[in-house]
Amino acid sequence: MTMATINIGCDLTYHVTSPCSFLFCLAAARTTQQHILQESMCLHPNLPFQSTHLGMEKSRGYRLHADPGPLQLHYRAQVDLMPDQSVTAGIVEVEYAQLPDAVLPYVNPSRYCEADRLAHFALRMFGHSPPGFARVMAICDWIHGNLDYQANSSNVSTSACDVLIQRQGVCRDFAHLGIALCRALCIPARYVSGYALNLQPPDFHGLFEAYLGERWYLFDATRMAAINGFVRICTGRDAADASFATLIGIAELLQMSV
Amino acid sequence: MTMATINIGCDLTYHVTSPCSFLFCLAAARTTQQHILQESMCLHPNLPFQSTHLGMEKSRGYRLHADPGPLQLHYRAQVDLMPDQSVTAGIVEVEYAQLPDAVLPYVNPSRYCEADRLAHFALRMFGHSPPGFARVMAICDWIHGNLDYQANSSNVSTSACDVLIQRQGVCRDFAHLGIALCRALCIPARYVSGYALNLQPPDFHGLFEAYLGERWYLFDATRMAAINGFVRICTGRDAADASFATLIGIAELLQMSV
Amino acid sequence: MTMATINIGCDLTYHVTSPCSFLFCLAAARTTQQHILQESMCLHPNLPFQSTHLGMEKSRGYRLHADPGPLQLHYRAQVDLMPDQSVTAGIVEVEYAQLPDAVLPYVNPSRYCEADRLAHFALRMFGHSPPGFARVMAICDWIHGNLDYQANSSNVSTSACDVLIQRQGVCRDFAHLGIALCRALCIPARYVSGYALNLQPPDFHGLFEAYLGERWYLFDATRMAAINGFVRICTGRDAADASFATLIGIAELLQMSV
Amino acid sequence: MTMATINIGCDLTYHVTSPCSFLFCLAAARTTQQHILQESMCLHPNLPFQSTHLGMEKSRGYRLHADPGPLQLHYRAQVDLMPDQSVTAGIVEVEYAQLPDAVLPYVNPSRYCEADRLAHFALRMFGHSPPGFARVMAICDWIHGNLDYQANSSNVSTSACDVLIQRQGVCRDFAHLGIALCRALCIPARYVSGYALNLQPPDFHGLFEAYLGERWYLFDATRMAAINGFVRICTGRDAADASFATLIGIAELLQMSV
Repeated sequence: MTMATINIGCDLTYHVTSPCSFLFCLAAARTTQQHILQESMCLHPNLPFQSTHLGMEKSRGYRLHADPGPLQLHYRAQVDLMPDQSVTAGIVEVEYAQLPDAVLPYVNPSRYCEADRLAHFALRMFGHSPPGFARVMAICDWIHGNLDYQANSSNVSTSACDVLIQRQGVCRDFAHLGIALCRALCIPARYVSGYALNLQPPDFHGLFEAYLGERWYLFDATRMAAINGFVRICTGRDAADASFATLIGIAELLQMSV
Repeated sequence: MTMATINIGCDLTYHVTSPCSFLFCLAAARTTQQHILQESMCLHPNLPFQSTHLGMEKSRGYRLHADPGPLQLHYRAQVDLMPDQSVTAGIVEVEYAQLPDAVLPYVNPSRYCEADRLAHFALRMFGHSPPGFARVMAICDWIHGNLDYQANSSNVSTSACDVLIQRQGVCRDFAHLGIALCRALCIPARYVSGYALNLQPPDFHGLFEAYLGERWYLFDATRMAAINGFVRICTGRDAADASFATLIGIAELLQMSV
Repeated sequence: MTMATINIGCDLTYHVTSPCSFLFCLAAARTTQQHILQESMCLHPNLPFQSTHLGMEKSRGYRLHADPGPLQLHYRAQVDLMPDQSVTAGIVEVEYAQLPDAVLPYVNPSRYCEADRLAHFALRMFGHSPPGFARVMAICDWIHGNLDYQANSSNVSTSACDVLIQRQGVCRDFAHLGIALCRALCIPARYVSGYALNLQPPDFHGLFEAYLGERWYLFDATRMAAINGFVRICTGRDAADASFATLIGIAELLQMSV
Repeated sequence: MTMATINIGCDLTYHVTSPCSFLFCLAAARTTQQHILQESMCLHPNLPFQSTHLGMEKSRGYRLHADPGPLQLHYRAQVDLMPDQSVTAGIVEVEYAQLPDAVLPYVNPSRYCEADRLAHFALRMFGHSPPGFARVMAICDWIHGNLDYQANSSNVSTSACDVLIQRQGVCRDFAHLGIALCRALCIPARYVSGYALNLQPPDFHGLFEAYLGERWYLFDATRMAAINGFVRICTGRDAADASFATLIGIAELLQMSV
């Protein structure tokens, strides 16, 4: 098994106008496939922060409170990635009756993935594809072939149905449509945010996972970055659970680099 | 503390046309406020079924597989309810920074509760209400005063935004709008399905909970049933997590009584 | 030129509960391609009615007022159709700058044809098709290949964008999507209601027209009826302008046959 | 009767990238209430243009074709306004049965005014208001009291239903909601674009008209400009019919002043 060591990080600069509570989800996840060698989280001013674990997947978060003024955050990590090199040929779908309990909620529709509205479309387009890994790849291929990646073509309220109409979006939109189509076919699917190697321009990336065989497999319908160089941050139902920064109060993000 | 003993139950009759996997969420929850004295779940034909626990709140479910033919389900339970008689005056909202980790996901928008789209509306309408229990009650009062309860006026894809346009819906729609408005104000809120005493016509009921003070409080914007006679089944983000029956395959629900 | 003589008609039975104003758009249009040999419009009770001409295309309508009680309407017409047998090969699109003034409004989006939201999709899918009659045929072929005709799968608020999501609809939905895609490509398009020969089950039919060369051409993306046996009733922006019956008051349509 | 003489105008600067067809709707309308004393339309370069009259209301437009390069348009007019000083007390609604034929299409829903979806809401909120001019004023008052005017809070696809959710918009959104609510109550309503005296910042303005008594009355739910100082440009079903500039091709609007 090949192992890669990757350095990731991000810098955020805010101007806080009113007292503000922040929840940052930008720390690399601790999983069996990625091992954090070292990690630092620096704030200027040097505010106290708490670590948290969010949702069913216990995604890591940092919570803090900031008073008005400038706020800078610098996160760095060195991560060992054990890329997933399992053979995907022949990976099957799991019948609903056999799905593990923990996986069942990922068949339900969510804010940005209205699987219920896409049931007929999904069955029509992918109902006859060979089931399993190949079917999810067929979904990704269709998304890649029918959507244009276009910065600023979507916003925070854009859902899978919206993107199917407008046929353009960014990585989170591609992932949402993939998730919605999988769920519409009763394949559990969820959203994953992370750092992607060599992404141009550098930014947080959004992918999706489908539950096949007896585990989750990662898919990137944008084909913009190698999945093997992807460092996971957050896992959730859709991007509503994986925002890199949630803030209650008034603050402006002045600068961001990943 | 007064305790009430309540008998609940439901009967479902299906005609199964193709092999079908079912997930039923209709068993009374086991909580500190409701104690199940006795319970029975009968199937005709006498199929095996598994118990499951779903989602972050570990809601109870029954899973089973049925071959084509008739299927009947009879659930009965006798439940001791410890009604919540705490004083609600002065119950405060919890600042985002102080919310427990387990509660944070309930601020995020979900399939039927597009809190993100309602942010400006919620702030405009309820931003100046006295915070706390009183503010959630103000939301319930507004919903009760501005929506009509109308059977069959909504369907499985109707969301909080839809119901705000059409101004009519059923219990799940009233609950979704309540949840969406709470979340838009940064008050965690979630969906609860259950059995309601004296509901006319008898049916499963949908309510919502808001996190205030240091626990969840139950609200019913329909005012159709006493909260103290409500037996909880399922707790989730919205009705997408709390369907009384999910089925994969082809079957027709011929009859239902609650 | 072959001419066909066709008998059409419809019978409507209402129960009027409160005083009701009706606008019926079910009379065959008088155009150069269809000549009305004879026509009758009978009402029981024998109420007075007025003829009207609606909108930019002066579609024929009947207006009447009914008091509570039963109401029956019987319309019959014998129509000579001069089927359009012009050659369609080589029919070109008209550049926006050359479009006649009277045609310009049919490029604008309308209630059920959100051409503005479909601009990117239309350009992506049909931007490289050979322009002209062939391009509109390509749109019809795509609609026919990607939508299922399904009775009761849509309702009065279903738009072209909705139908693109749900991938099923009835004739009016097929027409709306055709219109929206044409307009998104700057091809003027409009809705036409009428009687279709041999439609199964018999019902009013909805088609669309696109402006090409120097006139309007009729298209039916459902392929359910021969265009040459179609008797036009109403011409408008979309089905919002072409309802066979509009009523203000309370009445129930008990029976309808076409 | 007081008469006011007003000078209006606008300057548009484009950079045309590909050959472009333009339709400009920015010339003052000729009506019985506004008399154009003098008018000029200058283009740099000095391109030929055609005058056109659009839609049922024959709104004036200019059509022209521009090759790549800079394009400047300067429109000026001196207009005598005969302000409408009729008494509005006691102005009644017209029953559907009595509405003139030419007015009927303005009861139908349109792209940005989904009256069909707002029927229940409109009846609930305004069904008990005193009918007539007072009811339309009640609609305007409600809109003014429940929506915030906020530049850039909406876009070209924002409809009346969207604005009812987001509770903020610009003048066209206020007008669309007014139109949709009127139509939902069977009061004919339409969109009017124009120049408004003393509007801050200066821009084109959007209002709406309702058909009452035996003519159209102008309403401005934004209350941003005096109706008596409003110079009408275009009249249509909604803003889809009244864009100040429609262009087919690629051009960028660099500067605009009104």
